[in-house]
Amino acid sequence: MADTTGSNGATKSYDIPKTCKAGVVNDMGPNFYVTVEEVPVPEIASDEILLKINCTGLCYSDIHYMLNDLGTEFPNMGDFGVRSPGHEGAGVVVKVGANVSNYKVGDRAGMKPLMDCCGSCELCWGDMETHCPKGVHAGLMRPGTYQEYIACPAKYLSPIPDGVSDIVAGPIMCSGSTMYRSLTRSPLKPGNWACFPGGGGGVGIQGVQLAKAMGFRPIVVDTGAEKKDLALQMGAEHFVDFKEVGDAAAEVVKLTDGLGAHGVFVTAPLAYQNAIPMTGTRPGAAVMCIGIPPAPAADLGANPLKYILQGLTIKGTVIGGMEDTHQALLFAQRGLLQQICEVLPISRMPEGVEKLRKGQVAGRIVIDFNA
Amino acid sequence: MADTTGSNGATKSYDIPKTCKAGVVNDMGPNFYVTVEEVPVPEIASDEILLKINCTGLCYSDIHYMLNDLGTEFPNMGDFGVRSPGHEGAGVVVKVGANVSNYKVGDRAGMKPLMDCCGSCELCWGDMETHCPKGVHAGLMRPGTYQEYIACPAKYLSPIPDGVSDIVAGPIMCSGSTMYRSLTRSPLKPGNWACFPGGGGGVGIQGVQLAKAMGFRPIVVDTGAEKKDLALQMGAEHFVDFKEVGDAAAEVVKLTDGLGAHGVFVTAPLAYQNAIPMTGTRPGAAVMCIGIPPAPAADLGANPLKYILQGLTIKGTVIGGMEDTHQALLFAQRGLLQQICEVLPISRMPEGVEKLRKGQVAGRIVIDFNA
Amino acid sequence: MADTTGSNGATKSYDIPKTCKAGVVNDMGPNFYVTVEEVPVPEIASDEILLKINCTGLCYSDIHYMLNDLGTEFPNMGDFGVRSPGHEGAGVVVKVGANVSNYKVGDRAGMKPLMDCCGSCELCWGDMETHCPKGVHAGLMRPGTYQEYIACPAKYLSPIPDGVSDIVAGPIMCSGSTMYRSLTRSPLKPGNWACFPGGGGGVGIQGVQLAKAMGFRPIVVDTGAEKKDLALQMGAEHFVDFKEVGDAAAEVVKLTDGLGAHGVFVTAPLAYQNAIPMTGTRPGAAVMCIGIPPAPAADLGANPLKYILQGLTIKGTVIGGMEDTHQALLFAQRGLLQQICEVLPISRMPEGVEKLRKGQVAGRIVIDFNA
Amino acid sequence: MADTTGSNGATKSYDIPKTCKAGVVNDMGPNFYVTVEEVPVPEIASDEILLKINCTGLCYSDIHYMLNDLGTEFPNMGDFGVRSPGHEGAGVVVKVGANVSNYKVGDRAGMKPLMDCCGSCELCWGDMETHCPKGVHAGLMRPGTYQEYIACPAKYLSPIPDGVSDIVAGPIMCSGSTMYRSLTRSPLKPGNWACFPGGGGGVGIQGVQLAKAMGFRPIVVDTGAEKKDLALQMGAEHFVDFKEVGDAAAEVVKLTDGLGAHGVFVTAPLAYQNAIPMTGTRPGAAVMCIGIPPAPAADLGANPLKYILQGLTIKGTVIGGMEDTHQALLFAQRGLLQQICEVLPISRMPEGVEKLRKGQVAGRIVIDFNA
Repeated sequence: MADTTGSNGATKSYDIPKTCKAGVVNDMGPNFYVTVEEVPVPEIASDEILLKINCTGLCYSDIHYMLNDLGTEFPNMGDFGVRSPGHEGAGVVVKVGANVSNYKVGDRAGMKPLMDCCGSCELCWGDMETHCPKGVHAGLMRPGTYQEYIACPAKYLSPIPDGVSDIVAGPIMCSGSTMYRSLTRSPLKPGNWACFPGGGGGVGIQGVQLAKAMGFRPIVVDTGAEKKDLALQMGAEHFVDFKEVGDAAAEVVKLTDGLGAHGVFVTAPLAYQNAIPMTGTRPGAAVMCIGIPPAPAADLGANPLKYILQGLTIKGTVIGGMEDTHQALLFAQRGLLQQICEVLPISRMPEGVEKLRKGQVAGRIVIDFNA
Repeated sequence: MADTTGSNGATKSYDIPKTCKAGVVNDMGPNFYVTVEEVPVPEIASDEILLKINCTGLCYSDIHYMLNDLGTEFPNMGDFGVRSPGHEGAGVVVKVGANVSNYKVGDRAGMKPLMDCCGSCELCWGDMETHCPKGVHAGLMRPGTYQEYIACPAKYLSPIPDGVSDIVAGPIMCSGSTMYRSLTRSPLKPGNWACFPGGGGGVGIQGVQLAKAMGFRPIVVDTGAEKKDLALQMGAEHFVDFKEVGDAAAEVVKLTDGLGAHGVFVTAPLAYQNAIPMTGTRPGAAVMCIGIPPAPAADLGANPLKYILQGLTIKGTVIGGMEDTHQALLFAQRGLLQQICEVLPISRMPEGVEKLRKGQVAGRIVIDFNA
Repeated sequence: MADTTGSNGATKSYDIPKTCKAGVVNDMGPNFYVTVEEVPVPEIASDEILLKINCTGLCYSDIHYMLNDLGTEFPNMGDFGVRSPGHEGAGVVVKVGANVSNYKVGDRAGMKPLMDCCGSCELCWGDMETHCPKGVHAGLMRPGTYQEYIACPAKYLSPIPDGVSDIVAGPIMCSGSTMYRSLTRSPLKPGNWACFPGGGGGVGIQGVQLAKAMGFRPIVVDTGAEKKDLALQMGAEHFVDFKEVGDAAAEVVKLTDGLGAHGVFVTAPLAYQNAIPMTGTRPGAAVMCIGIPPAPAADLGANPLKYILQGLTIKGTVIGGMEDTHQALLFAQRGLLQQICEVLPISRMPEGVEKLRKGQVAGRIVIDFNA
Repeated sequence: MADTTGSNGATKSYDIPKTCKAGVVNDMGPNFYVTVEEVPVPEIASDEILLKINCTGLCYSDIHYMLNDLGTEFPNMGDFGVRSPGHEGAGVVVKVGANVSNYKVGDRAGMKPLMDCCGSCELCWGDMETHCPKGVHAGLMRPGTYQEYIACPAKYLSPIPDGVSDIVAGPIMCSGSTMYRSLTRSPLKPGNWACFPGGGGGVGIQGVQLAKAMGFRPIVVDTGAEKKDLALQMGAEHFVDFKEVGDAAAEVVKLTDGLGAHGVFVTAPLAYQNAIPMTGTRPGAAVMCIGIPPAPAADLGANPLKYILQGLTIKGTVIGGMEDTHQALLFAQRGLLQQICEVLPISRMPEGVEKLRKGQVAGRIVIDFNA
């Protein structure tokens, strides 16, 4: 039993079991499937904490990992002989290593896709630490948030502010944070049109909320009544159902003064090929790449003449860092970033993964380890 | 005869002939050729000035126009029955319309690709006037600087500061100004590597000088001893001869700490397909599109996964505006932007055009109407 | 009678009278007073339009002008022997000069503080045209919007979009546009605290609305129940009544996580001395100077040590330009920028001026020339 | 003896003595004096390294500390009963704590003013870590670089690249890095005038070199033939001797097209009151505050009317962080940032401190512990 004295003087203590539940992937590749198993609770190093995950979001990047369709070789995850993906988890610190000073037992914390970085390179110093070549990626290189108890370096863990529930905080660790980074690194300014192809999904809908909170004017391109309702409720000014209109890009252009969106934020891999047309002829527009496509990836179709004549920008941003996550959490604290999610107990994680794999999720699926 | 009182109290006056020399294009298309003809000196409207061109640069965009290979329909140029391209000219104001207040006879001025814009739209107000849909383009929509006397709206003409000769000022109107815009709209900061594929040419070599003056570290990728000498003399730290090395992009990566250039400024259409590899794996790098490719254009090869994982930006900028031109002229005034050019008399313009068409020009060809 | 064919094919025509109403200032200085007089409708030059003002806002800068307390000598306003201040008017074009192409009779347009600028200097090219040394200032150098019909250069007049009434558009020409410029040139980002001392006044309350629309978190410091209600209704998250709390700055710091506001936007001259304390110890905070103080001006109290240790910025911005005005009008078109104003007929203009002079206005007074 | 295997496979080892030389301050206050004493070599914690300082610069901030004239209470420096200032040192890692992974014995490293920060707050995440409230300041809170061997947290130590000598690297840790930060956070762009009042001193002259390397046009305002020669040699385009000209600010304005400098970088406390006049009437100019004035500090004289009408910015920046230091070191590696310094052996440190206290130093004094 680990214990400590809480901030109110009371002692917090947690019973740490020997084993815990974990969603693990079997037969990585096109026929993968997930099972929930009992795995050992890991030991921690002196600069690590043991994080008990309460909630984890399911992200389509997990599916890519399990499908093994990114054309990348991933390391084995170490001693346990199992692979647990997952990189957007929220929980509580139940044990701290001897050299940890920034967390104490009982603090709430979230696990992001980047579990650790070196802190000692040009990228880490220059606000590009999510590109650090020594970065350790949760759920890819070490067991991730599909596992109830994980060991993680204390340094790069994100604190969760009061007033943000674990269900809300979980998906912010990856998708909310990533959308914050993309939005703030785009050239858009308040009052501009921000178009979200695939914006009815779990990543996009967080982008829609953040875009609205930043003064942009969101338009969602997706399909179905459920996603339409969700999009409009979350702040989209328009919803374009790509199955109902003949030409979704033309419809976006029509809705944006005939010129096109100032920014197109692509969260759905299938949306890339139609992204540039959604900028119409808007001078100075930008396509922001967020959603990871399977290899071989669809090409955006980058004709330099178009870029020049329109003053067009195409830009990619990868997962958010500490600052992006912090800022996204502050919006959540104010109620401006909610999770539109279906919450499933850990026992139903395999079912949730299947649903996500088939693209049947409006919003996000969040797994509750305590349910 | 037009005359006025110069700033020193003396009267300046110019004999304005009835006709003047002009380079005109015949048989627009793949077999075009240029002849020098005698054409009428145009009349001016009340908000225009009559500009006597002393020097004009030859730009590869002129060749595109004359080859008619851009997939665009251009208007006839009006009353004269001839087409005179050209959009980077320097000269002197010899007559001013009744409503012109910003120029007087005797002032030096330069003609840019954009001859006029509406001044009354969101783009004109927002530093994007070179995208104004009502823009009038010199040498495309009205006779350009291949003609010795041209009528042009006074409002959008660029004054030439003392200490900048006409030979230097001419090519700044298009290529120098365009490079200034691209460099200042890129994400590069002082100390970063700026790679110029095709940088031994007339546009690129101005970019190299401006890059150096802004604290960037230029690398030129081109071929031949002449271009090598020129590049190194103008401030390039390295020259990569793409005919001598097996893989020019790999060589650029090697020269830039193994990571790749921070920015790649593409002025040569053929260089686009090799531009992204020159950024290597440098996080946050940018490819800036400048040189106009013929239609159908080569594709840059825009795999969103690459953009995302590298945090890559691709961005196009079109010709420079008033401010870009002004700033580039100030660098020229300080001697930091020179023209590396061969000066030919107007009688040899057809020969100069042929040379440019065949890609045999290191630096720029400038036509001197007074030689 | 001027007439033209409207966009719907119908002919628009306006009866232009020989004389019109104008608010003119008498005994400029501490004892000034305003009377409404009948003055000649002016003639226009070939590059001007005749603008029939429907509504004008009253701005405290007018009071400074009439009090003559800025320590500046102003020119006589020309031929009429009277001085008509005013620089935030909305109306309709009733006559156009021979060389005007960007307006036609019947178009709606607004007069800003800057009536004209040279368009041919580094400042005009570089988005700093409101500092142009050749600028012509409405109501200071030429008769302004206190006069029903005014002659004004067409070039720098702002078009008013559909859906924005004259009552709303008038004050945007000066105060809305000025606030837009200050907000967008501040270092604040969405989610930051924006504090408005004097924010219950006519300028500040527009800032509050724009700040909210841009994703900032407004706090208003002012006094009285009326201003409190107004501030909260317009989007302020907090209202600090400086007469009720002992130390308004300390209260602002308390409300902003104990650190201080990220930005303080000073619209009330009396608020300058308390502005820096409102930033508390917030690193990277900024004080933005907007409201013009009478001469001799209160000093902000600029201790360099404070600037250094806090990374503090103090920055002034002057009136908005074409782009600022356009963007502010677009927010108004979406209903996000309303005018909180008392509308008075022209006959009661002297009374309105007195009220403003005495600081008794919550929001703005707008004069309706047609009432 | 500590030892390790170097990167070339050879074993590096250092004899670590029990005691070492240290400059310590006696009688802190107006009559302070420095003596060189033998002090114990400190023990290190598990996340610290033992740094053997080869060179330290002397910074005027040290004088403030020893004069105790900043109006701040400083903590005792711990166990040794002596106070060793100093915060710009270069040396070699001779021992590493058990948990240190980013340094090994034999690595070169530099000590900056900020010795450590929490890494876990909004400021640390947001590129503002030099304002971290938990920051540990070298030479103020713990023994600094006046002492030959110091214990320091490994995390926030700056690596020194090959090709930069310890003499050059030392002062970059504070003043070079600080100037880099100020220059890059100013609104200046290449080609702009950067004025350095006090620019002949040790901080300013690094600013002059960096400014030139970034494409700015430096002007130095200082006095004496020695500083003049130095300034011009290091890249200043003009030198204004404030003892020779009646009005230094007027002279600066005259040299900058009659408008004033675009930026004024104040490194000398006495220069603050004359800083705003050096911006003349240049719209959009900025005064950057760098040099720490003694308390009570001279006021800059901040009249809001001036800020507004000129669009003026005043901004403070504190010491540079990891990224600023890294970038400044890269300029040094290219030979663009040299130290203009007098090198004294440790035995003559007291003399060097006296000279600095009296303002008799052109450039910088660097103490060599090995001489």
